[in-house]
Amino acid sequence: MPVKLIQATPSAYTYPLLIKSLLHASLATAPDQEISYQGRIRYSYRTLRERIGRLASGLAALGVDAGQTVAVMDWDSHRYLECFFGVPMMGAILQTVNVRLSAEQILYTLNHAQADVLLINSEFFPLLAQIADRLTTVRHFVLISDESHPHEAPVALATEYEAMLAAAAPDYDFPDFDENAQATTFYTTGTTGDPKGVYFSHRQLVLHTLSLASSLGTAPGQGRMHREDVYMPITPMFHVHAWGFPYLATMLGLRQVYPGKYLPESLLRLIRDEKVTYSHCVPTIMHMLLTHPLAAEIDFKGWKVIIGGSVMPQVQALAAMKRGIDLFTGYGMSETCPVLTLANLNTADLDLSPEDQAVLRAKTGRPMPLVDLRIVDAEMDDVAHDGIATGEVVVRTPWLTQGYLKAPEAAEALWEGGYLHTADIGHIDARGFLKITDRIKDVIKTAGEWTSSLALEDVLAKHEAVHEVAVIGIPDPKWGERPLALVVLKPDFDGKVTEHAIRNFAAHLIETTGISRHGVLLQVQFVKALSKTSVGKVNKRAMREARVSV
Amino acid sequence: MPVKLIQATPSAYTYPLLIKSLLHASLATAPDQEISYQGRIRYSYRTLRERIGRLASGLAALGVDAGQTVAVMDWDSHRYLECFFGVPMMGAILQTVNVRLSAEQILYTLNHAQADVLLINSEFFPLLAQIADRLTTVRHFVLISDESHPHEAPVALATEYEAMLAAAAPDYDFPDFDENAQATTFYTTGTTGDPKGVYFSHRQLVLHTLSLASSLGTAPGQGRMHREDVYMPITPMFHVHAWGFPYLATMLGLRQVYPGKYLPESLLRLIRDEKVTYSHCVPTIMHMLLTHPLAAEIDFKGWKVIIGGSVMPQVQALAAMKRGIDLFTGYGMSETCPVLTLANLNTADLDLSPEDQAVLRAKTGRPMPLVDLRIVDAEMDDVAHDGIATGEVVVRTPWLTQGYLKAPEAAEALWEGGYLHTADIGHIDARGFLKITDRIKDVIKTAGEWTSSLALEDVLAKHEAVHEVAVIGIPDPKWGERPLALVVLKPDFDGKVTEHAIRNFAAHLIETTGISRHGVLLQVQFVKALSKTSVGKVNKRAMREARVSV
Repeated sequence: MPVKLIQATPSAYTYPLLIKSLLHASLATAPDQEISYQGRIRYSYRTLRERIGRLASGLAALGVDAGQTVAVMDWDSHRYLECFFGVPMMGAILQTVNVRLSAEQILYTLNHAQADVLLINSEFFPLLAQIADRLTTVRHFVLISDESHPHEAPVALATEYEAMLAAAAPDYDFPDFDENAQATTFYTTGTTGDPKGVYFSHRQLVLHTLSLASSLGTAPGQGRMHREDVYMPITPMFHVHAWGFPYLATMLGLRQVYPGKYLPESLLRLIRDEKVTYSHCVPTIMHMLLTHPLAAEIDFKGWKVIIGGSVMPQVQALAAMKRGIDLFTGYGMSETCPVLTLANLNTADLDLSPEDQAVLRAKTGRPMPLVDLRIVDAEMDDVAHDGIATGEVVVRTPWLTQGYLKAPEAAEALWEGGYLHTADIGHIDARGFLKITDRIKDVIKTAGEWTSSLALEDVLAKHEAVHEVAVIGIPDPKWGERPLALVVLKPDFDGKVTEHAIRNFAAHLIETTGISRHGVLLQVQFVKALSKTSVGKVNKRAMREARVSV
Repeated sequence: MPVKLIQATPSAYTYPLLIKSLLHASLATAPDQEISYQGRIRYSYRTLRERIGRLASGLAALGVDAGQTVAVMDWDSHRYLECFFGVPMMGAILQTVNVRLSAEQILYTLNHAQADVLLINSEFFPLLAQIADRLTTVRHFVLISDESHPHEAPVALATEYEAMLAAAAPDYDFPDFDENAQATTFYTTGTTGDPKGVYFSHRQLVLHTLSLASSLGTAPGQGRMHREDVYMPITPMFHVHAWGFPYLATMLGLRQVYPGKYLPESLLRLIRDEKVTYSHCVPTIMHMLLTHPLAAEIDFKGWKVIIGGSVMPQVQALAAMKRGIDLFTGYGMSETCPVLTLANLNTADLDLSPEDQAVLRAKTGRPMPLVDLRIVDAEMDDVAHDGIATGEVVVRTPWLTQGYLKAPEAAEALWEGGYLHTADIGHIDARGFLKITDRIKDVIKTAGEWTSSLALEDVLAKHEAVHEVAVIGIPDPKWGERPLALVVLKPDFDGKVTEHAIRNFAAHLIETTGISRHGVLLQVQFVKALSKTSVGKVNKRAMREARVSV
C-alpha cells in the first residue's frame, strides 16, 4: 500500500522553498537594520530589498531571463549580496567566479557555465583583456567599480551597476517557480584536470540556511549565533557562497559588514570600528590578521570565528583564544554547499585547559540537523566511532551538489553507492566529534587498513634532523601498500644520520601513539627536495608516479 | 524561458524531508542523552531509536501498512513520542486524539479519519465503552497502561504496548518515500458544527521544526533555546503536536521529560526535580501552577515558558516574572502546525520596567523564518504597520494545512485568495510585533472599519458598576454594524446607574485611547446574564442571533 499524499484544496498556496522566502522574516522584524560596505556605504534591509528589485529589473532590461547565467567578479560587497538574492530570485543562475584563478581557468569556467552576462569589477579589467576575445557566450558586460575613474574597459560595456539600478524600477515581480531550479554555480579546482562545476538549487540553499541557523543558534554558548550579532565574511563570497553565511545573516536580520578586498589592515579596522562579532575564515587569513602590527591594538573579545578550508593548527587556536577570539572549526567543501559539521563546545568543555579546548576546537565538529554523515571502509561498512578507527567520510544531506556540470563520469564517482564521497579520511569519537586525518588520495592502504600519511609526517617531523618530509604509499606485494617517507635533511645533519635511525625513531613513536600499527612498516628514504605544485604545495601525486616509474 | 532545474546524476541521493531525518543529528551527537517519563522511566536516545523500530515492527505485525491511520489516546508520555516518530516513519498516519472531547466527538473523529488501529490508555476505557460498538473502521485496539491491573477492556485487545515492543524486532527498515506523504492528522473544534480535520506532511513537520529551531535558537537571550535545555511539554501532545516541540527537542538532542496526565502537583515536582528549563502552556495552566500551594516552595528561576492558545493577561506575565519565570508568547493555531510568531525580546527590552516588558511579552510576537504574515482589510490589501490599524491575519508558510479532511467548502474558505485566513484580527507595530485584538467573528464592522469587541469590553470593564460585559455587533442601516454592549451590573448597583451613564463613561475613554473612532457609536443595554457555552465561554453567536430575531 502506498503512502497517502496530502491533498491541497484548489486555493491553497503550496509554498516552494525559494531564496526570496529568506527575506520574509527579516523584512518583517528588522527592516531598518543596517548593511554596510567598507564603512563607506550604509543602508537598510528595506533598501536592500528595493535594490534587489532594481537589479532584477535592470538585468531583465539587458535581456536576462529565467534559466540564464549571470556571472559576477567582485570582492565581497553589498552588490554581491544583492546578486546572491536578485539573480536567483529572477529564476536566473548566479555564477560566482573565483577571481584568484588564472585567466585561463576563469575563461574556461565562464565558457563552460555559458555565462550570458558578466558583472565585473574594473580591478579585473587587465585579466579580462587577456580572455575577452575568447569568451564564447557572454553577451553583456556590466561595470562594477568603487572608483570614479576606473580602468579603461577592454570590452564594450552595457552599463554600470549603479547606473543600471538607478534607471530600473524597484518593483520587479519575483515569480514563484520550481524550488529545484538552479540558483548558483561555481567551480572547484583540484590539483589535476579542468575545474569542475558544482550547482545548487533554491531548495538546497534554503535548507542549508535553516540547518545552519538551527545548529549555530542552539549552540549552548560557545560560538553561538544570535540576532544581535554583527556579521562580516572573511571567506570570499565567490568561495562556496561565503560558506552560506550571507544567506544566513540576511534571513536572521543581522547587521552585516562587507569588507571589499581582503586587506589585513582594513579587515582589522572594520572588526574594530563596526564591532564585528561573527566571521569565518581559513587558517592562513587568521594567521595574517593575528600577526599584523595593528592586531596588537585591537580588542578581539567577543569575536566569534569559524575556521574551515583546511585543518586549524592547535597553536593558532591557542594564540587566538589568548586574544579573546572565540574560534572553532566547521567542515564542508564546495560540493556540500558547504557546511556539514560544526565544533561548538558544550558548556562543560569550557572548564578544560586552553590546550584541551584547542584540541576540540580544532576538530571538525559534529553534524548539523539533517546531516547523515558516516565514516566507512572500502566496502561502505561503518567503522567504529571510537576516535581511533578511520574511514572515508560519506554524507547525505538535502544540500549536496547532485553532480558536476557536464561531467557525468566525475559525478557518478562522487556519488558512488548513493552517498557523496568527500574523499576525506577521518575518525569520530564517542561524543560524535569528527576529526579529518587525511585526504583519501594521500592515505596509505595496508592490508585493508588505512594509515594517515599526515600522522606519520607529524611523527617524523619531530626528529631534529628532518627539514621536510612527505609520506606516500608505495605498492607492496604482501601488504598492498606500505608507507614510504621521503625526507629532506637539514643541511647540518647531511651525512650524520642514517635512514635506518630515522625509521627506528619513528617506529618507536608510532608504537606509543594511536597511529595504525601498520605505520611501523614505514620505510625512509633521503631525497634532495620534495616535488611541489606551482602554488608551493607538496605534490604527492608526482612523487608516487615517480616512484612507480622507477 | 523556463527556469533550469538541477540535474541529478543517477547515483545521487535526492534527500526527501522525512521525519526520520530529524533523528540523524541527535543520534550522532547525543546518543546517551536522556528521555524520561514521570521520573519513573528513563532511557537514552539510542533506546528511543530502538523502540521506534520495535513499534513499527509491532504495528506491521498487526497489519499496519503505509497510508493507514494509527490513532493514539494517551497522556504525554515517552510512548507518545515514539508514536510521533515511528508511525509516520512507516508511511502511516498518526491521529492524535483529543481526549478532552466528548465521547461523541471522539467517535466522530475516529470514524471520520478512518482510524485502523487505536492505541488507548486504559484510563479511557469507560469512554471507549460508550462508543466501541459504533467505531466503523478500527480493526485493532492496543492497550497502553501504567498500571499493573488496568481497567477491564470493553473491547478485545490485540496486544499491550510494551508486550508488542518486546516481541518485535528493533531493526525495522524505514523506507524513503514522498515527503508530501501525510504524517499526522487531528481535529479542531469550533463552537459550531462538527470537528474539522487538519493534516500535515513529513515535509511540513520538518520545515516547521527547522524554522522553530532557527527562531528560538537565535533569540538574543530572552527565551532562547539551546542544546543544554531540559524540555517538558505542558501543552498536550494531542494538541497540535504539543506545538511541535517534541520534534524540535528530539532534533536538537535535548533532555526530555514527559509528565503523563497534567496534575499540578506532579508537574511542579517534575519542574523542580528534573530541573526543567523549557516548556509551553496555555494561560489557564500557568495560572493553576502559580497558584498551587507547592509553587511557593519552588525556585522557578531559569524556566522558560512559551504561552499560547489564548491571550496571556499582563498580570499573569508580571506574576510569573516575579517568580523568575521567563515567559513570553507564541502564536499559531491548529491549522498552522502551529507556530507562526514568537515574542522573544531584544536585549535592550530587558531594561524596560516589568510592566512595559509584560506588554511586549503578552504580544503575539514576530514572524519566524519563512513566515509570510500579513494583516489585510476585506479587499486583501495590507493595512499600515503602525500598531493601531487592524486587519485580518493571513499567512503563507510551508507548514499550513492544505485543507480540511473531507470538507472541501470549509477548506476553500480557509484558503480564500491563496492565503490561509486565521480569522484573527490584529495589528502590527513598527518593530514587527503582532498583537491579536479579536476573533474576526466577534469584530464589529462599522463603515468599512473594524472595531475590536475585546477592546471595548476592556474599557467597559473599568466602570465600577460592571460585573460582566460582552460587546457584539448589531445591524445598522447607516453604519452597516454598530457595537452593542450587553452589561450585567454588580448587584449593589442595580437601579443606581443608567445605560446612558455607562455609555458616556466608555465613550470618553474611547476618545482618549487608540480604539477605532467608531467605538463611540456604542450602545449599552443592561441584561440579567450573558449567554454562555457549555464550557462556560461567553457565546456571542447566541447573543447576536437573539438580537437579530428580536
